[in-house]
Amino acid sequence: MYRHVRELQFTSKPEKPDALFAMKFQEILGGQFGEMTVMMQYLWQGWSCRVPGKYKDMIMDIGTEEIGHVEMLTVMLARLLEGAPGETTEKAAAANPVLAAVLGGQNPQHAIVSGGNAMPTNSQGVPWNTGYIVASGNLLTDFRSNAAAEGQSRLMTSRIANMTDDRGVKDMLAFNLARDTYHQQQWLLGIEQLQMDGFTDGVIEHSNGEWENADAAHVFYTSTPGSRAGEGLWATSNSLIDGQPFRTEPLEPLTDDTGLLPPPDPKQFVTYDGSQGPAKPGDARGAYAQGAQNVVGKLKDALTPDN
Amino acid sequence: MYRHVRELQFTSKPEKPDALFAMKFQEILGGQFGEMTVMMQYLWQGWSCRVPGKYKDMIMDIGTEEIGHVEMLTVMLARLLEGAPGETTEKAAAANPVLAAVLGGQNPQHAIVSGGNAMPTNSQGVPWNTGYIVASGNLLTDFRSNAAAEGQSRLMTSRIANMTDDRGVKDMLAFNLARDTYHQQQWLLGIEQLQMDGFTDGVIEHSNGEWENADAAHVFYTSTPGSRAGEGLWATSNSLIDGQPFRTEPLEPLTDDTGLLPPPDPKQFVTYDGSQGPAKPGDARGAYAQGAQNVVGKLKDALTPDN
Amino acid sequence: MYRHVRELQFTSKPEKPDALFAMKFQEILGGQFGEMTVMMQYLWQGWSCRVPGKYKDMIMDIGTEEIGHVEMLTVMLARLLEGAPGETTEKAAAANPVLAAVLGGQNPQHAIVSGGNAMPTNSQGVPWNTGYIVASGNLLTDFRSNAAAEGQSRLMTSRIANMTDDRGVKDMLAFNLARDTYHQQQWLLGIEQLQMDGFTDGVIEHSNGEWENADAAHVFYTSTPGSRAGEGLWATSNSLIDGQPFRTEPLEPLTDDTGLLPPPDPKQFVTYDGSQGPAKPGDARGAYAQGAQNVVGKLKDALTPDN
Amino acid sequence: MYRHVRELQFTSKPEKPDALFAMKFQEILGGQFGEMTVMMQYLWQGWSCRVPGKYKDMIMDIGTEEIGHVEMLTVMLARLLEGAPGETTEKAAAANPVLAAVLGGQNPQHAIVSGGNAMPTNSQGVPWNTGYIVASGNLLTDFRSNAAAEGQSRLMTSRIANMTDDRGVKDMLAFNLARDTYHQQQWLLGIEQLQMDGFTDGVIEHSNGEWENADAAHVFYTSTPGSRAGEGLWATSNSLIDGQPFRTEPLEPLTDDTGLLPPPDPKQFVTYDGSQGPAKPGDARGAYAQGAQNVVGKLKDALTPDN
Amino acid sequence: MYRHVRELQFTSKPEKPDALFAMKFQEILGGQFGEMTVMMQYLWQGWSCRVPGKYKDMIMDIGTEEIGHVEMLTVMLARLLEGAPGETTEKAAAANPVLAAVLGGQNPQHAIVSGGNAMPTNSQGVPWNTGYIVASGNLLTDFRSNAAAEGQSRLMTSRIANMTDDRGVKDMLAFNLARDTYHQQQWLLGIEQLQMDGFTDGVIEHSNGEWENADAAHVFYTSTPGSRAGEGLWATSNSLIDGQPFRTEPLEPLTDDTGLLPPPDPKQFVTYDGSQGPAKPGDARGAYAQGAQNVVGKLKDALTPDN
Amino acid sequence: MYRHVRELQFTSKPEKPDALFAMKFQEILGGQFGEMTVMMQYLWQGWSCRVPGKYKDMIMDIGTEEIGHVEMLTVMLARLLEGAPGETTEKAAAANPVLAAVLGGQNPQHAIVSGGNAMPTNSQGVPWNTGYIVASGNLLTDFRSNAAAEGQSRLMTSRIANMTDDRGVKDMLAFNLARDTYHQQQWLLGIEQLQMDGFTDGVIEHSNGEWENADAAHVFYTSTPGSRAGEGLWATSNSLIDGQPFRTEPLEPLTDDTGLLPPPDPKQFVTYDGSQGPAKPGDARGAYAQGAQNVVGKLKDALTPDN
Repeated sequence: MYRHVRELQFTSKPEKPDALFAMKFQEILGGQFGEMTVMMQYLWQGWSCRVPGKYKDMIMDIGTEEIGHVEMLTVMLARLLEGAPGETTEKAAAANPVLAAVLGGQNPQHAIVSGGNAMPTNSQGVPWNTGYIVASGNLLTDFRSNAAAEGQSRLMTSRIANMTDDRGVKDMLAFNLARDTYHQQQWLLGIEQLQMDGFTDGVIEHSNGEWENADAAHVFYTSTPGSRAGEGLWATSNSLIDGQPFRTEPLEPLTDDTGLLPPPDPKQFVTYDGSQGPAKPGDARGAYAQGAQNVVGKLKDALTPDN
Repeated sequence: MYRHVRELQFTSKPEKPDALFAMKFQEILGGQFGEMTVMMQYLWQGWSCRVPGKYKDMIMDIGTEEIGHVEMLTVMLARLLEGAPGETTEKAAAANPVLAAVLGGQNPQHAIVSGGNAMPTNSQGVPWNTGYIVASGNLLTDFRSNAAAEGQSRLMTSRIANMTDDRGVKDMLAFNLARDTYHQQQWLLGIEQLQMDGFTDGVIEHSNGEWENADAAHVFYTSTPGSRAGEGLWATSNSLIDGQPFRTEPLEPLTDDTGLLPPPDPKQFVTYDGSQGPAKPGDARGAYAQGAQNVVGKLKDALTPDN
Repeated sequence: MYRHVRELQFTSKPEKPDALFAMKFQEILGGQFGEMTVMMQYLWQGWSCRVPGKYKDMIMDIGTEEIGHVEMLTVMLARLLEGAPGETTEKAAAANPVLAAVLGGQNPQHAIVSGGNAMPTNSQGVPWNTGYIVASGNLLTDFRSNAAAEGQSRLMTSRIANMTDDRGVKDMLAFNLARDTYHQQQWLLGIEQLQMDGFTDGVIEHSNGEWENADAAHVFYTSTPGSRAGEGLWATSNSLIDGQPFRTEPLEPLTDDTGLLPPPDPKQFVTYDGSQGPAKPGDARGAYAQGAQNVVGKLKDALTPDN
Repeated sequence: MYRHVRELQFTSKPEKPDALFAMKFQEILGGQFGEMTVMMQYLWQGWSCRVPGKYKDMIMDIGTEEIGHVEMLTVMLARLLEGAPGETTEKAAAANPVLAAVLGGQNPQHAIVSGGNAMPTNSQGVPWNTGYIVASGNLLTDFRSNAAAEGQSRLMTSRIANMTDDRGVKDMLAFNLARDTYHQQQWLLGIEQLQMDGFTDGVIEHSNGEWENADAAHVFYTSTPGSRAGEGLWATSNSLIDGQPFRTEPLEPLTDDTGLLPPPDPKQFVTYDGSQGPAKPGDARGAYAQGAQNVVGKLKDALTPDN
Repeated sequence: MYRHVRELQFTSKPEKPDALFAMKFQEILGGQFGEMTVMMQYLWQGWSCRVPGKYKDMIMDIGTEEIGHVEMLTVMLARLLEGAPGETTEKAAAANPVLAAVLGGQNPQHAIVSGGNAMPTNSQGVPWNTGYIVASGNLLTDFRSNAAAEGQSRLMTSRIANMTDDRGVKDMLAFNLARDTYHQQQWLLGIEQLQMDGFTDGVIEHSNGEWENADAAHVFYTSTPGSRAGEGLWATSNSLIDGQPFRTEPLEPLTDDTGLLPPPDPKQFVTYDGSQGPAKPGDARGAYAQGAQNVVGKLKDALTPDN
Repeated sequence: MYRHVRELQFTSKPEKPDALFAMKFQEILGGQFGEMTVMMQYLWQGWSCRVPGKYKDMIMDIGTEEIGHVEMLTVMLARLLEGAPGETTEKAAAANPVLAAVLGGQNPQHAIVSGGNAMPTNSQGVPWNTGYIVASGNLLTDFRSNAAAEGQSRLMTSRIANMTDDRGVKDMLAFNLARDTYHQQQWLLGIEQLQMDGFTDGVIEHSNGEWENADAAHVFYTSTPGSRAGEGLWATSNSLIDGQPFRTEPLEPLTDDTGLLPPPDPKQFVTYDGSQGPAKPGDARGAYAQGAQNVVGKLKDALTPDN
């Protein structure tokens, strides 16, 4: 459960409004790597975390802090938009032509939809969606995704910070950059903690590793003539799993399977020349023959009194 | 430029069709972390890479291999769907009730849209979109995103692999798992290579770091009563940037800014009580006063002959 | 800024797991009218609210409560999914055919993506997106949207509640239904409060009303032969704005404008027969002739020293 | 079934083209609350309406009128775009610099995709989608959603109307504003009619109300220190359902359930420390034990001749 | 403007309800090639058509007919869903196990969201969106797109028709198939009419053809070893534009441009090794040097009295 | 499987950067009919093709070439963006006001997200998605869709080509236009080849044609008063299927079915007046009566030893 306090986590005041900058600023609020993404990603991971104690508490604490970051950015945007939207008639443009030109780049939804407030979208107006977030229940892979998200988020914040000279904006972004610096480390150290606590053997997601194709786990395949890719550590060092050396090989088919497909069901009206044998309607015999056999057999067993 | 060979990279043949498994299998083809994502992400990063030689070649080589992975999965799906779709009329269901029941879970688009082939969607039918991929031009952050994507992708492949006993499917997935194992390491080693080559100081994205809020880069904020988050390495170790210790602090506002917003433009019809001062129409004086001043001044300069 | 406590707002425990019900349950979490929608809508409206005091506080308080509702639903879903995902191999299905059949309807992402946890999607797997929410800054219209969202949300919660006999689920839903009952009233009473406080004249959004087409504001247009629509209050009562009676009229064009379009720019290669006059390339003379005149004139004024 | 007449419902002619205004104008055509939304929402509700006579006829009549509104707006847009697109080469920009600047804000798809016509998107280019509409079959909740949609739609139309001085545009918008004024009342009166006809007890969606948590239906929960939310009618008046008074309470957990989750299926590779008991593979015993028992039992009954 | 009549265009009555078939049926209503697509595509093309007379009238007439087709399908769906949704509790499933199994495949939104009515989505629950439609203003390309859409639509309708034995459903689909047969021809004949009327030279979109790369317009490029693609008419016949023969060539680079990119702006923090020359901040000199020169020069001209 | 070579297919170098043109140029890369669409559409069709030899090889060859086209466009975009993004601070704008104005129209994600590279989005920033592509397995309909896509793609390329005077850009577009010219013919000739090879009877998709409603396949329906649509070939020529003449008829209902819907399940809380008979809960008897009968009967048969 959550509680709210009126004060922001950090001051969020521009020196003066700037509607054109506000348009760009949306990227770090509602973009793929904006604050809404890390807020929802961490909240979801926290609610889904099955390790109580420091792990669940940590994810919950940071997810909660991030709600406040989204709040800070929406407040900053509303202040950047002060006094902006109403003047975009032709008459206003004519009275202030240079200004009008700059306003050409303004986000029209800031005026029309939100009435001078932030929009829950990126800098191009695309609505934020949960296709950006992940919560797999596997803390190793989730922490790695979180470190990546913080890195991208910090990079984009940094680029935007270079697009303004406003001290108020820069002060808040200096705080945000620092939090992104810290959070990147937090997630990388979280992976170290998982190792220390025995929740992961190494830093590589390696489930079902006992039956993976061991040979294919050690090769860099190259197909570009003249490729120098084989000079990198990824090709010249040893596996972090078993210490065996990596090697570079030309990309060649490991099979003579050319991907020819079986005859289609005639009721699908798929174009077919008969070369894979006669086509016949899908009728369970094709798709499920063996499965059906088993299932019907077991069904009879299941109906016996001693089941 | 790209070329094609008929043979697949690896054999892609199930022992027998299984339309229900095919539905689930779509997740590792067209899901957030499916093969389409890594294919498009690496191709895009390769095309955008500004470091010729081993870096650009490596990203290009792996992106090219991934096109072949998408190919392998679409072939596998078409073979898993053999003979399946046509039988789902009520009559067919009546003739094979248990089977019909299983078919209730089948992806209807496999029959209706693709005619017994793979769909470019995830296991729930959601179209793949480029909101899943990133190519920032910054190799540190992109490699970190790539390692994360490979980890999530491997985890989901692994979960799906546990949902079938089909030897043909499992053989191909053993190959895919191995490639994901290798690729995770490839990207992590890529970060080491970047450090070795002097393209990044550390493993933390730290642009504009010289003016970030240094204090805020060393604190874990906690707000959950009884939180044990402070026991983790993220709170007890030292910064990877400057070696200074991290610390845990209760989450408290660092400001008395309560986020009150300026008066709205009356033409926006935003509800307002006057408490932030009189509302007046946006007229450049509000939003762009200083900026307009500068811009008009410079415009005059720009028009002088010696410019 | 926000804070977290470990305890949920209300107990969120099913009597026993039910993966098929979990699939449907997603609708009230991540659907168009799920809890994510009201959480994000109210938070956004609160951050954007320009009336401090009871209005801003109220929106903030309820938005904060809703974060906890999303938390409750994700916990419920993880518990409904206990023990479910691993058994969907053919072998498991064969051992429990009836069960397997039910599992055919399960959400595959509950197993593959989230590892037995809630997904941030609706019951059909569509990601939640901010295209579902609104925050216009105008409290009258926003409160009306909020009341509508609560009504739809309650209806869907109610329908889902009828799909289970699980006492634990029903207890939590009884709480949710009650909150939706209360919240519907809260927003309707919010509109009354706005009237009482003088922030709105009536219950109709009526900005720029002084110049709207007064006649068109009193007519119900009907085009269906035999339509009985004219019997309703919407046609037989008086306007809530000016007390004038409504009337019913047949839907007829109020103009002889048949929507013929001007000649296209030839560089657009739009098919055109010349009947609207000769086509000529867009060159500012067409589109902006008058506007350009004004703007250039004013630009010269803007460059005079006394500006 | 539908029929078409050539004449528009209302004249739709701007005094002169204005490509920049056209970009913004898209919001009321293809935005979340644009005319496409109400058109599709009412048509869908009409087709789905189970109450013949004045209700079904009314929804059908208004949905049909709205098709004509979408038509009017697309015609207006094509006329606003006359002569605009072809001139945006650098050469054209150089010949008309101020104009070129304004053109910077133009929607490029108006030139590239539609050839000088309207796009079926919002002002930021986001395609319209059916995630914006609702048709629940429940007329109380649908009418409430319709009134909300008309209110938001009118507000945005009003904001856009203030961005132009063009008499032709303003004349059409004066008509649209009036229809939105009327339609808001139509839906609110529709709710009154539902009450009068006995199709709803009150104005609150209250299905399954007999077993909702009665206490939770009367409380406003507050968590913001110093919140004045308790001063509003939502906290000080009486329930519209049972006349009992509302009250304000601090937001406190009503449970000691901290949301700890059950052990995950080991085949999901979810991180887990064993604290919730041993993890075991999902095998029907976990997820469906009781359900399976019942279902198998009933299956046997179902197979008896007298069923 | 549009008018409505109560009668459907064609009877839309299934013999009996079938919720599982209803789920699949959604594809031809709200899918990429469903009736909503052709309805919206034709309406949009009609409103945008600049050739009055038989072309504009024809597009308008067919678009209007299609509104009625969407109506027919929604009615069919509501009737297929009769009595379906309420029974999906575990208790109901237990009483009718085989049925329950089939219900596992049902669309949950048919019960939860629409209350037993059609949804505006495809068979997988994905909302319909305007990214499916096109209206370019160029009748040749639009008619070609329309013919393609009718073909795909008819194919999918045909596949779905094979999934039911219901006479009522099949009667309506026999009507729909016929309309798709007719409409395919209508659009192909429309292209012939365009040629006959002189609105297009040939059947190939060929704008700016006078300066296209003539050589590249006559080659089939092949890169697959052993490819037999050169045996097809596309490689062995003559151009429909100029009568020159087509030929097959191996896919080879036509340039030595390896796509190396210029140095990035240092403020972008893009990884770069200096090999393309020194990086320098973007400052107009880089990006717009020449353009700025021109524009400023012309601006001065524009301000002279005689302009 | 795929291979890569460093050289592009065609030189992709602008004379000079142009960030504003780059924004528009995105449409032919990541738009509905951009190169990503044809690349993914052809790859998918090739992988799904069931006719080995010239058909499968041809689709594979062209799909592979298209990957190289996407590569060319991303390279062009990175070069158009050289030096552009860093200068958009207010200070830079003030120093170059005219330039700054043009930059108002720049795509902010080119600076913030991709670091001066192409984005995988259209000209309005909307992410590319697989809802744009089709691969039905039916070569007739797919080739028709491909010809349509090439036509639209060529038209939009042509429009964009008219928006620049840059020789480098125009040279590459001259190549692209030529390939689109060729590819349109390729797909149309592919349809001829299908006829020649006996894979399709005619050029109309006509599956299940034997039982379609023959009468409805020959009528153009018109509802617009004064419509001249009946003058076109679509109404005056003969059917391409059976040679029978087409005719024009007024659009009239062919039924007295007014689409009244059955009573809803009371548990859905759908508004209903009883006029269609008493409402009763969905309980299998309603929805599945006959189906259940059959299925249970057949289930018993299925369990007999001889099945």
